[in-house]
Amino acid sequence: MDALATAFVWLDYAAVAVFGATGALAAAQRKHDIVTFCFFAAVTGVGGGTMRDLFIDAPVFWVQRPDYIIACIMAAIAVWVFGAGDARMKVLLWLDALGMAAYSVVGAAKAISLGVMPFSAVVMGVLTACFGGIIRDVLAGEPSILLRREIYVTCALIGAGVYVVLYMLGVRDMWSGLGGFAAAFVVRAGAIARGWMLPAFPGRGRGRTN
Amino acid sequence: MDALATAFVWLDYAAVAVFGATGALAAAQRKHDIVTFCFFAAVTGVGGGTMRDLFIDAPVFWVQRPDYIIACIMAAIAVWVFGAGDARMKVLLWLDALGMAAYSVVGAAKAISLGVMPFSAVVMGVLTACFGGIIRDVLAGEPSILLRREIYVTCALIGAGVYVVLYMLGVRDMWSGLGGFAAAFVVRAGAIARGWMLPAFPGRGRGRTN
Amino acid sequence: MDALATAFVWLDYAAVAVFGATGALAAAQRKHDIVTFCFFAAVTGVGGGTMRDLFIDAPVFWVQRPDYIIACIMAAIAVWVFGAGDARMKVLLWLDALGMAAYSVVGAAKAISLGVMPFSAVVMGVLTACFGGIIRDVLAGEPSILLRREIYVTCALIGAGVYVVLYMLGVRDMWSGLGGFAAAFVVRAGAIARGWMLPAFPGRGRGRTN
Repeated sequence: MDALATAFVWLDYAAVAVFGATGALAAAQRKHDIVTFCFFAAVTGVGGGTMRDLFIDAPVFWVQRPDYIIACIMAAIAVWVFGAGDARMKVLLWLDALGMAAYSVVGAAKAISLGVMPFSAVVMGVLTACFGGIIRDVLAGEPSILLRREIYVTCALIGAGVYVVLYMLGVRDMWSGLGGFAAAFVVRAGAIARGWMLPAFPGRGRGRTN
Repeated sequence: MDALATAFVWLDYAAVAVFGATGALAAAQRKHDIVTFCFFAAVTGVGGGTMRDLFIDAPVFWVQRPDYIIACIMAAIAVWVFGAGDARMKVLLWLDALGMAAYSVVGAAKAISLGVMPFSAVVMGVLTACFGGIIRDVLAGEPSILLRREIYVTCALIGAGVYVVLYMLGVRDMWSGLGGFAAAFVVRAGAIARGWMLPAFPGRGRGRTN
Repeated sequence: MDALATAFVWLDYAAVAVFGATGALAAAQRKHDIVTFCFFAAVTGVGGGTMRDLFIDAPVFWVQRPDYIIACIMAAIAVWVFGAGDARMKVLLWLDALGMAAYSVVGAAKAISLGVMPFSAVVMGVLTACFGGIIRDVLAGEPSILLRREIYVTCALIGAGVYVVLYMLGVRDMWSGLGGFAAAFVVRAGAIARGWMLPAFPGRGRGRTN
């Protein structure tokens, strides 16, 4: 059990660093300087968790601990040094899936541990997993994951939902977390590898495709 | 009096649902899936009130109660089922005016009830009424209501201002609220039906029109 | 010493007003009405400090005091009356540099005074100095300072960093503040007058230049 708990602590840092790296990549695509790399890495890495903490009235998790911001800075430096080639982009897409899956559970678990009701804990899991990337895309002037048809929010919803339901059913310790993590990751893997998506709105829209 | 109080509780839910529906319509125009519909509905429906609660240091209103988010999800489902035809868009424009007018008063009233000074309570009314739609437009990559010439923020300012002034003059209970609500709605109705706007900046700009 | 302290209080208002004026200018470029001028001025003027206060769990600085919002409204009226000619834009660019330099120190100093650890206090200084402008640009649909190559975040980072390091070394009172302020302003002046920038990411990007 201890090994699993330790694994989750590392998964938490890894998720921050991976999200941070995707932020740095957004900066890389416009050939920015190292400070902008770090800024985008930090905003993306801690953005979702920051909103969760504000909404549930918890102290913002990175303010009294430098390690999360430092993880983002290290991710930014790594992207700067190792570059943003296509092969690395593919690796990052999969790492991002791991980070999203971890964060959907971590976000919901923190909310539940602070007495937030289960329904809202699921919302917090989704926010934690998705909002860092949304802020990154808005700041970078890119269409956000919200505007792509490929499922992403849905995966976070499944991860947080499975975790909270298992938890409410009495599955505690790490197993509910692993269940949510696995569910989110498997569905996201299907989206990446096979283009899984939900049915589009069947009614009339303006016919845009992006 | 009791009937009026009950009416305001329902108006509060109705405002959340109506704003939520405008969020779902933004998703409909790009033919998204049902989860994205719900995400946009929730962000738009509770976004303004969330910012108000963060700024006045109140518990975020929807976190310990599922009903507001559920109202947004129901609005999203309704848009999905009933579609986004032109006639419905016009109905929603008017419902949005009702929601904006209600929220300008509700936002200011909550701030005053928590001891916020009157000047800032007006600001909170404006934020509550306008920021959900602004966040929706930023996330959807659309030009926000801020960038249109038709008055909207002004209507919320009038609604919150009339409410707070009446309240400070000793008009309590529901009458100050109804006064603010009516003032905001009438001015917004003039903007929708007759294109009311304030004079544009007379100086040199870059000459853009949108 | 008292004169210096008084100077800093005025610098604080001046920084809010200057940032507010840059917000009003964003509205002027699209020929908006006076309410939109005031809205942009307020969001830009107090946006960065608002995020800082939320993150360090301090009461949001402008909520119980009308003076900051009034300073923004006065700045908006001034822009409306005096216009947005090229000469005035150049003056504002330099005033903005003063405001940014002041805010990088003020933001870090407030964080330190509330017991935030030094590392995070530097982050708060950067946020306070930069986020008002970022929010302004996102709401106006413009590419933000984050997406320009000219250094800006870097200057705030230097200002906040110099202040916090001096403070930790025991340089208290106004001298650490003046040191940080001067460092941020000098570097920003170099960016404005001589186009100072940091090296761009040397790897492959998408080749965009803006």
